[in-house]
Amino acid sequence: MLSHLKNLLFGETLANDQLAHQKFTVFWGLPILSSDAISSVAYASEAILLVLIPVIGSQSYKYMFYAALCIVALLFMLVFSYRQTIDNYPCGGGSYIVAKDNLGVVPGLCAGAALSIDYVLTVAVSISAGTAAITSAFPLLLKHRVLIALAIIAFMTIGNLRGMKDSSRLFGVPTYIFILTIGTMIITGIVRVHVFGQTPAASNEILPSFGNITLFLFLKAFASGCTALTGVEAVSNGIPNFVEPAQKHAKKVLALLAFVVLFIFGGLSYLATLYHTVPSDSKTVISQIAAQVFGTGFLFYLVQVTTAMILIMAANTAYTDLPLLLSLIAKDGYAPRQFGKRGKRLSFSNGITILCLCSGILLIMFRADTNALLPLYAVGVFISFTLSQSGMFIKWIREKKIGWRHKALINGLGALVTFFTAIMIGITKFRHGAWIVCLLIPSFVYCMLKIKEHYKEVSVELKLSKNERPISKVDNDRKVIILVDSLNKAFLKALNYSRSISNNIIAFHVATDEESAMSLKKKWDEYNVGIPLVIEYSPYRDLVSPLLGYIKKEEDHTKSGESVTVVLGQFVVTKWWHNVLHNQTSMFIRNKLYRERNVSVVTVPYIINE
Amino acid sequence: MLSHLKNLLFGETLANDQLAHQKFTVFWGLPILSSDAISSVAYASEAILLVLIPVIGSQSYKYMFYAALCIVALLFMLVFSYRQTIDNYPCGGGSYIVAKDNLGVVPGLCAGAALSIDYVLTVAVSISAGTAAITSAFPLLLKHRVLIALAIIAFMTIGNLRGMKDSSRLFGVPTYIFILTIGTMIITGIVRVHVFGQTPAASNEILPSFGNITLFLFLKAFASGCTALTGVEAVSNGIPNFVEPAQKHAKKVLALLAFVVLFIFGGLSYLATLYHTVPSDSKTVISQIAAQVFGTGFLFYLVQVTTAMILIMAANTAYTDLPLLLSLIAKDGYAPRQFGKRGKRLSFSNGITILCLCSGILLIMFRADTNALLPLYAVGVFISFTLSQSGMFIKWIREKKIGWRHKALINGLGALVTFFTAIMIGITKFRHGAWIVCLLIPSFVYCMLKIKEHYKEVSVELKLSKNERPISKVDNDRKVIILVDSLNKAFLKALNYSRSISNNIIAFHVATDEESAMSLKKKWDEYNVGIPLVIEYSPYRDLVSPLLGYIKKEEDHTKSGESVTVVLGQFVVTKWWHNVLHNQTSMFIRNKLYRERNVSVVTVPYIINE
Repeated sequence: MLSHLKNLLFGETLANDQLAHQKFTVFWGLPILSSDAISSVAYASEAILLVLIPVIGSQSYKYMFYAALCIVALLFMLVFSYRQTIDNYPCGGGSYIVAKDNLGVVPGLCAGAALSIDYVLTVAVSISAGTAAITSAFPLLLKHRVLIALAIIAFMTIGNLRGMKDSSRLFGVPTYIFILTIGTMIITGIVRVHVFGQTPAASNEILPSFGNITLFLFLKAFASGCTALTGVEAVSNGIPNFVEPAQKHAKKVLALLAFVVLFIFGGLSYLATLYHTVPSDSKTVISQIAAQVFGTGFLFYLVQVTTAMILIMAANTAYTDLPLLLSLIAKDGYAPRQFGKRGKRLSFSNGITILCLCSGILLIMFRADTNALLPLYAVGVFISFTLSQSGMFIKWIREKKIGWRHKALINGLGALVTFFTAIMIGITKFRHGAWIVCLLIPSFVYCMLKIKEHYKEVSVELKLSKNERPISKVDNDRKVIILVDSLNKAFLKALNYSRSISNNIIAFHVATDEESAMSLKKKWDEYNVGIPLVIEYSPYRDLVSPLLGYIKKEEDHTKSGESVTVVLGQFVVTKWWHNVLHNQTSMFIRNKLYRERNVSVVTVPYIINE
Repeated sequence: MLSHLKNLLFGETLANDQLAHQKFTVFWGLPILSSDAISSVAYASEAILLVLIPVIGSQSYKYMFYAALCIVALLFMLVFSYRQTIDNYPCGGGSYIVAKDNLGVVPGLCAGAALSIDYVLTVAVSISAGTAAITSAFPLLLKHRVLIALAIIAFMTIGNLRGMKDSSRLFGVPTYIFILTIGTMIITGIVRVHVFGQTPAASNEILPSFGNITLFLFLKAFASGCTALTGVEAVSNGIPNFVEPAQKHAKKVLALLAFVVLFIFGGLSYLATLYHTVPSDSKTVISQIAAQVFGTGFLFYLVQVTTAMILIMAANTAYTDLPLLLSLIAKDGYAPRQFGKRGKRLSFSNGITILCLCSGILLIMFRADTNALLPLYAVGVFISFTLSQSGMFIKWIREKKIGWRHKALINGLGALVTFFTAIMIGITKFRHGAWIVCLLIPSFVYCMLKIKEHYKEVSVELKLSKNERPISKVDNDRKVIILVDSLNKAFLKALNYSRSISNNIIAFHVATDEESAMSLKKKWDEYNVGIPLVIEYSPYRDLVSPLLGYIKKEEDHTKSGESVTVVLGQFVVTKWWHNVLHNQTSMFIRNKLYRERNVSVVTVPYIINE
């Protein structure tokens, strides 16, 4: 019944050879790999304004525009740097791999930890922002936003566990619609104001100012806007998914991505400046601009819906990338091995499940509030940018191939700028949540190193040398202990098995009350079982300790290091609810016995009521 | 760590011989065994008024008093009947035992089911009412009442799991304080009105009337008030807890109990009539009377606190009685056997846990509202009264001992009256919740019969006849299959074990990818293991099916019904969190293999990192 439900929800199990990658052209690669980067624009301008407006009021719009320009400049620097990564890591050059290859294990793990945290945040932030787009259009839903966000996560998790390969091309469409809709909005808005001389409703309102612009405030605004750059890395990770020549296509997509972000981010920032939009809890900046430009008709709702869709798709890229990253780390032995196994639908189901859990908890803790989540975001991304760029820089210096000076300059500059940005984000957002990430990254790295150490120790301990040869003598005098609860057919089956492997058997009964012990003893003699019965009374109703005590005594007695065999008759019922009716004593005893070095446990099942 | 926490919460494990019953004298027996009966008075008058006031307004008080008189009459009839039960069941004559002994299994189970449901309801109702007493005194707590109620349940559950034998005498004190406080209140109230001529604040208000008294309405009020009689049975259940002569003491306590209930219930009903109390959601009837009689000083709060305490103690009697009842039913085989086992502190911990869960769910569902829970209550009690009295009646008729006519008359009359009361309660409260109980009782009885049937079938199937003798030949050519994942020390240990029990071994590997299968094959040949290696490729990454398929083929091949032995090397880590780092494949395979009739499973543990 349960497995039917599972099949209905997740689909039939897939065979190994059904694993096939869909290859992208530039036209489909752009929307699919860049939804994260493009969508982050939806909340970046808002994040900048939220820093500036409470302090400098109406002056904010000017400085917001400067901050946006700096961010775009940084974007182009990143694009140049990443083009070089694409050239050199044709199999996908995630920060984890680049940093590990060139800087060593610990920087690699740092990048891996930073990225993992940021993927979780991508899901939480994007889905919060997507939910905000929905509730801006339908304010009645505002009080249910946590529930809506969780429903989207649940839906996305099931979809990813099923594996969404077949429909992934469909995912490209909303991105194009988003680009078109927002593009139309930007052009219409600019034309209305500059050509037709429309005066936006809010632009004459003077917002109160409580201070002047300071360098720190500007840097804080810049740092907040840097969330617009998250997701740039996705293209260089996804090279193997392009049709050949893959690297060339990937570089083209990266360049196109930069121009799209430039256009949309620049345009939206400019419009916000024109319309003097003030972000509020219930209305996003985009929704306010759309309402001013388009009124509240069809086009307004189209903007909201496509924004929500592209944000949800951005979350979906984390669902593709994090499990893959975890599987790479797991294959290197730095994460639990289960992350490297494919589930019934060939997706990395454990990674997907953990992403669902973590981002769900974050959403509940932060009540699906994008602006509360944002301070945690971006630190991780810029740490991984820095590590990846530094890795490339070191690589050029070390290899000294043709043109290495030029290349080292680009990546070095990239590393430097992203490093300073990371520091800036860390400092300005530290109190608002970045400290959590600063604590988490080193603890994750520590755990990953510990995990590797454990796997190494286990593998050393298990390693077989050629000198250790198996024995080849059958031993019919091994010590066998059968546990007996009462004299019945299940016991007889266990007894027969014991007889067939040894001539040295005793039966052991743990009595919790004397009456039942006497009755067993009587039946034992009547039936004339033919092997000795040892009864131990357990005043604390503990079934295992008396047995372990007996085994210990036997071992001391025989002075041999040989193993004792404990035989248990397990009776198995065929209807699941029948299990409720039987004490699961046998299972309990077994699980305790497995901790004993010299005890082999034999389970002889007896099936009832087939 | 977990077991430390468990010890802290529940105390150290107790040995069997530490189980000792504390014996009561009449003085302590009265408060301890009658808290349920005496406390139900706290909500009975209120329940009657809630039926009458909305229909007949100010007239209600007169009819409330009549209903109270009928209930007291019924109480005395019950006391006479139960005195006879006490004489005949010195070991405790619960309805379950009396009905099963004299009427047969199904009536016995009906009584058992009805009682079980009512014990759960006792907890839910008493704790809701106790919480209402607290919130009447401290209205600020009103909105947290569900939480308060759940906290009390949690506290009580832990207390009962620890076993509260030592302090149970302490439990008598609040009952006496309650009797004294309420007694003082009744006398003061009556003296104030009749001697000093005080006119109560509310008594002149005319409540609107929307109809006249009808027989049905009166019966409904009577039925609602019958909750005052719940808990009368407790004394006859508790006979073994009295000092000798136990039966005489129990009968004395029963008589005293009746007089206490008469005094308090009669007095409170009379006071409610004098003061024209109108029950409300936030103030209980008792709290309103107390406020009128005592003002809102110390005595007012004393009434509230002692009421809350005695109600909570009433819930505690359910915690003692239900697990005992379930253990009796379990020992007869009509309930899962686990209910008959004593936990680490010698309490019937499974019964206590299930009581906690069920009453907690009820409290949450009914939002800790006493008056919403009451319609479910009392039906069950009166069904069990009826069955127990009928059982006694049949016993007299059947045995025909001296004076049987007289005794049969009393119990017969008791059975008749309680039967009609049960019917009345069932009809008048049917729509408000009694239907739930009317559905639950037969379904519980059905389940209990099914459980007995299952246990019987199992015991028949397991029964060993004298002719079935164990074999006594050691067989060194049994088929042994070792599961191999990789060549390591854990495998070597498993291999050595297999070698020591058979000369007919093969190794079996389930490959999920071809690469690792090739690598295993290569190592296998290099190491020169000396037994054949079978590799099956599993495209669906399912580890068990290929193995079962192989076993099936082998069985068909050898055509013998003999069992196959599967040996698994289980490696065991000593720190619990290390388990997270290893696929629990071995455990998973084992659990699947246990369902196979002809497969014995041997686990050879290999302990890592001790």
